[in-house]
Amino acid sequence: MSVRISDSTVRRLSLYLRMLRGLRVRGVELVSSSELADRAGATSAQVRKDLSLFGSCGKRGRGYEVDALTGTIEEILGLSRVWRVALVGVGKIGTALLGYEDMLDRGFRVVAAFDIAPDKIGREIFGVTVSPLSEVESVVCEKGVEIAIIATPPATAPEVAVMLSEAGVGAILNFAPTRISEIDYVPVRTVDLVLELEGLSYLLTSRRRNGDD
Amino acid sequence: MSVRISDSTVRRLSLYLRMLRGLRVRGVELVSSSELADRAGATSAQVRKDLSLFGSCGKRGRGYEVDALTGTIEEILGLSRVWRVALVGVGKIGTALLGYEDMLDRGFRVVAAFDIAPDKIGREIFGVTVSPLSEVESVVCEKGVEIAIIATPPATAPEVAVMLSEAGVGAILNFAPTRISEIDYVPVRTVDLVLELEGLSYLLTSRRRNGDD
Repeated sequence: MSVRISDSTVRRLSLYLRMLRGLRVRGVELVSSSELADRAGATSAQVRKDLSLFGSCGKRGRGYEVDALTGTIEEILGLSRVWRVALVGVGKIGTALLGYEDMLDRGFRVVAAFDIAPDKIGREIFGVTVSPLSEVESVVCEKGVEIAIIATPPATAPEVAVMLSEAGVGAILNFAPTRISEIDYVPVRTVDLVLELEGLSYLLTSRRRNGDD
Repeated sequence: MSVRISDSTVRRLSLYLRMLRGLRVRGVELVSSSELADRAGATSAQVRKDLSLFGSCGKRGRGYEVDALTGTIEEILGLSRVWRVALVGVGKIGTALLGYEDMLDRGFRVVAAFDIAPDKIGREIFGVTVSPLSEVESVVCEKGVEIAIIATPPATAPEVAVMLSEAGVGAILNFAPTRISEIDYVPVRTVDLVLELEGLSYLLTSRRRNGDD
C-alpha cells in the first residue's frame, strides 16, 4: 500500500472518516457515495475515485460497508493507533488545546507540555505536567512524543521548531501566527486563524468594492 | 481596483503584510522582493507578479517602499480598518480566542460573545459580556457585527451558522470540527486542527510504510 495520496485527497478521507465513525456509533451498516460526498463537499464520482485508490468498491445500489471502510481509511491515515503529542507554550490557546477533548477522541493524546515561565513549570493542566522547555530533548524521548503542537508567541516559534526536530519529534503543527519551514524532513502544518480572518476581510471588501451587496 | 485575486495570492499578501508591518515598526524603509519571498515561502518572481497585480513596482536594485506597500496591501485586503467580530461558544477554545491579542493587533475586535449555558450568560470575559444565543439577531445589529467565529460543539455549528447569516453577519470563521457550507453568500472558512493532525499522521505513516526513515 505505497500509493502517494495528495493533500486534498487526505483531507477528504478525514472528512469521510468523521462521518463513517459517526455512522458506526449509531449502528448504521451501509453508506452511499452521495452521502459521503455531501459531508465532504465533494461529488459522488470524486468519492468513488478516492475510495477506489485503495481498492474499496461500493456495491451498486447498496453502497459501502461502514465498518470495513472505516477500518481501511483509519489504516491509510495512520489512525488505527493513538499518537503521542507534546504541546509547547501553555498560554491561553495552549491551555485550551490541552483540554481539547476532540483531539483525544480522534487519536491524539497530549503526553507532555512545555513552557519557559517559572510559574507554569511543574503545574498540572488537564492531567499533563508542564516541563521546562530546556528539558525538551529528554522528555520527548522518555514520553515517546511523535507530534508536537507549537502554541508559543510567533517570535520564538521557529527556534522551538528546531529544538523539537532535534529532539526527534516527527511532525509539527504550528499554531503561532508565523511561517515555519520544514526542518530536516519534519513536516510542518500551520493553523493560522488571523490569516483566515484576513481572507474573509478581503472577500467582504472586494464584494463591497464591486457593489455585490 | 476590481481585480479578483485568488485565495492563494490573498494568503501570500497576508504574509507579506505581516513582514512589512514588522519592518515599518522597526523604521526600515525598503524591502527587496527576495526578502518578502523568503517570508512567504514564495519566489522573488512570484512576489513581483503578485505586487504588480495592483500596480506596485519595486525599483531595480532598491526594492519596495515599506510604507507605501504596507498601505496598498492593507487597502486591498480591507485591513486599513477594524472589523467587528462576534464569538459564538464560550468554551475553552472560545475563551482563549476572546483573549487572543494577536487578533485585535491585526484589526479584528471581538465586540460580542454568545453562549447557551446559563452560567456563562452575563459574565464578562476579557472585556466582552456573554449574551444568550437567542438574542443573536438584536446584538449583531446593535453592535454592528460583520464577522463571526463559531467555537461551538460540531453538532450545533451548522444551525448557529444559519442563525448568524440570518442575523446579518457577513462572513464566518468556523472553529468547530465540522464542515459548514456557504449560506446565502456568507463565506465560511474552517480552521480544523484535528484535520491538520490527521494530515500529519498520514505523512508519518506513509513514510514509515515506505521505509523513508
